Amino acid sequence: MTGTPAEAVLNQLGPILGDAISASRGVREQYSRSESYRIPALPDLVARPSTTAEVQAIVRACASSGLPVVAFGAGTSLEGNAATIMGGLCVDLSRMDQILAINAADMDVRVQPGIRRKTLNAQLRDTGLFFPIDPGADASIGGMTSTRGSGTMAVRYGTMRDNVLSLEVVLSDGRAIRTSSRARKSAAGYDLTRLFVGAEGTLGIITEVTLRLHPQPEAIAAAVCPFPSLAAAVEAAVFVMQAAIPVARIELLDDVMMRGVNRHSGLSYPEAPTLFIEFHGTPAGVAEQAEVVEGLAREAGAEGLRWATEPEARSRLWHARDNTLYAGRALRPGCEAIITDICVPISALAECLEATKRDADESGLLAPIVGHVGDGNFHMLILVDPADAEEIERGRAFHARMVRRAISLDGTCTGEHGIGTGKMVYLEEELGDAVDVMRLVKQALDPRGVMNPGKIFTLAGGGAA
Amino acid sequence: MTGTPAEAVLNQLGPILGDAISASRGVREQYSRSESYRIPALPDLVARPSTTAEVQAIVRACASSGLPVVAFGAGTSLEGNAATIMGGLCVDLSRMDQILAINAADMDVRVQPGIRRKTLNAQLRDTGLFFPIDPGADASIGGMTSTRGSGTMAVRYGTMRDNVLSLEVVLSDGRAIRTSSRARKSAAGYDLTRLFVGAEGTLGIITEVTLRLHPQPEAIAAAVCPFPSLAAAVEAAVFVMQAAIPVARIELLDDVMMRGVNRHSGLSYPEAPTLFIEFHGTPAGVAEQAEVVEGLAREAGAEGLRWATEPEARSRLWHARDNTLYAGRALRPGCEAIITDICVPISALAECLEATKRDADESGLLAPIVGHVGDGNFHMLILVDPADAEEIERGRAFHARMVRRAISLDGTCTGEHGIGTGKMVYLEEELGDAVDVMRLVKQALDPRGVMNPGKIFTLAGGGAA
Repeated sequence: MTGTPAEAVLNQLGPILGDAISASRGVREQYSRSESYRIPALPDLVARPSTTAEVQAIVRACASSGLPVVAFGAGTSLEGNAATIMGGLCVDLSRMDQILAINAADMDVRVQPGIRRKTLNAQLRDTGLFFPIDPGADASIGGMTSTRGSGTMAVRYGTMRDNVLSLEVVLSDGRAIRTSSRARKSAAGYDLTRLFVGAEGTLGIITEVTLRLHPQPEAIAAAVCPFPSLAAAVEAAVFVMQAAIPVARIELLDDVMMRGVNRHSGLSYPEAPTLFIEFHGTPAGVAEQAEVVEGLAREAGAEGLRWATEPEARSRLWHARDNTLYAGRALRPGCEAIITDICVPISALAECLEATKRDADESGLLAPIVGHVGDGNFHMLILVDPADAEEIERGRAFHARMVRRAISLDGTCTGEHGIGTGKMVYLEEELGDAVDVMRLVKQALDPRGVMNPGKIFTLAGGGAA
Repeated sequence: MTGTPAEAVLNQLGPILGDAISASRGVREQYSRSESYRIPALPDLVARPSTTAEVQAIVRACASSGLPVVAFGAGTSLEGNAATIMGGLCVDLSRMDQILAINAADMDVRVQPGIRRKTLNAQLRDTGLFFPIDPGADASIGGMTSTRGSGTMAVRYGTMRDNVLSLEVVLSDGRAIRTSSRARKSAAGYDLTRLFVGAEGTLGIITEVTLRLHPQPEAIAAAVCPFPSLAAAVEAAVFVMQAAIPVARIELLDDVMMRGVNRHSGLSYPEAPTLFIEFHGTPAGVAEQAEVVEGLAREAGAEGLRWATEPEARSRLWHARDNTLYAGRALRPGCEAIITDICVPISALAECLEATKRDADESGLLAPIVGHVGDGNFHMLILVDPADAEEIERGRAFHARMVRRAISLDGTCTGEHGIGTGKMVYLEEELGDAVDVMRLVKQALDPRGVMNPGKIFTLAGGGAA
């Protein structure tokens, strides 16, 4: 009578969700791939709930039918994190995009997961507060939480790990829990908030996020600083971190990426390894920081900083930085980019960057670099011709060496993109038996295995090939 | 043949540990109570391992015999967190007190769990770095990690949650895992580091801790500032937080506690609600912060700040603050102190403090206050006569109202002391079904229930009465 699990779920949810659930091929195909998906992954159903109660009904129906249920935010993740690789129901949370409460005195805000970070900041503008986490893309807050996202301002303001105060989560049995109070700190039992941050929807579906906010800085200054070599640029960044200068951002673009930025954004920066730096604080504090950083940059070999203090000039500068994905691709029209994401202790950063760049050259690959160097985190865009199977294979082999190099330097296979499907094998290599602890937690919280299955690790162990 | 589980474990471990394991009553009694223990709790055995391998052998023996195994650091916890309330083996980690690696360039350090924070800082002095977390007591790093401790500098540097980079943990099956790489940020799977931070030894025994360090500030200034009322002092603290002044500490002592401080330390501060404030930064930065804070304090009704810039004067000031447990008790010789620990959103802090103080007065209780007010966290010492059962009961009832008031204000039943045995019933009230998630995690990681049983929650649910 009910047929497949998907049909059973559709029958059960149709009366509750009406046209907010669909099995039509046209709708499902909108969710079947992203820029990052390695394989098209067509969901059986797509639901667009408006309330936590609807999410609970969806999860209950899927759990009872054994149908995978996969949360979907803005589709900007980069490791296939939200792909329905085993089919199932895709829960598009974009209708749950409201700000529920702004507590300006406490500098926090409670939001639904579907709100995007730029919309949030636009709505916060008059409060004097802002939400600093900036992964580049206009991601949803729920998605950023689920992948433990970070981006350019993590060096000053931390990552999603540090900026989520509390969550409402729908568990695999359909119950909704709140992971903590709204107090700034707590020693009340296990840190469930941090357990769900970065779990990529494999332990539950996030339906509310309470975020820390920060005062809009009184003064902001930004600067661009080219260096004679990659090593010199990294050295300057390390000096800045060790001097505890509270820079708001310190981003590295290599010479190849600067060429792409100039080409894509019609700019004329020197095509040399370059730091993009931003300072937040009081006018006097910003001036003091800027002076110290300029001194450190000169010590590392730079000629000087080019300033952008006016909002428009700053906006142009960061727009150029935020578009490095497109700028990188502009270096080779028609190419696809294999996007990488590793993070190492900062003492190993120069060695890691130089070995990686040398390897790219030796492999005959065009691969511009952009990095959140204050955290030891960087990305390469490995540009490959989608029609050239040999080159794609060469790019993949290079990527594997790059990740293993980071792990061998006591770094991590992903600084901010998450494991998804793309990094499973490396997670095992990085953490060994600790991945078994993740498995135990997963099996305890999702005994039916319906929450975003096939991500982060395989239940059987050993990772994906 | 083997008799009780404790005898079986002793037979098994004796050949491995030699005189590092003991069943003698004299030794066991040293671990049977602390200042905070509500009931004496005598372990059956005490072991003092020197290596991770010895901890693994201990845990394996206990798990196979079903004997509780409870990690013990410096014995400074305040909610019975390390009490062997169900008997079992007490693992005293004080012999594992070595610094294993200082990575000065990365500003991190890897230590064994038994090292105490003051020893660590003494050994770091020449590196230009320090470990800022200061809970007052000279606690062990393992203990501070397990209770998610924090203290006076959390307002600037965060809590143990924010300052632990990675852990080595012995699981209940005897395996040792490393929870993460040494990279500053990572999106590599579940946040196991944060899962064990604050788990109070109920999920595993921590055998190594990698900590973030911070540069020793170039300039430090400290000040004491009396206020005409508690509300005025809290208002000033809230102004400071909202102005995003990066104070290193901002501590509130009420008029009663100031009387105790004067009496205990032979000082002559005004006996009024008082903020103790410390600034870290460059000389210019500290001067700027101090000027802004002085202005905000005056705006809230203070006459001005009394400065202590010389190291000796600062040391006297913070020594007085750190001894508030003794200073409070000095107000009533022979008394015992019921120590409390709640944390609320800062917007609710004035209301919470004033209602609590009014309640203490109406209950006829002498109860000095000390608070990490920048975080919304404060403690009361409820001073009771240990021979007066009625007064103890009155103190306990007052404590219950205080905790419930914090929860009703969207706060937490513990900001930094942990749940232990003392806060189990309140954890259920605060988090409801979320405690079931903690139970599921506990049962998955410790199926035999041997790791510090009877703490944080009961496995059956409902909390302890």
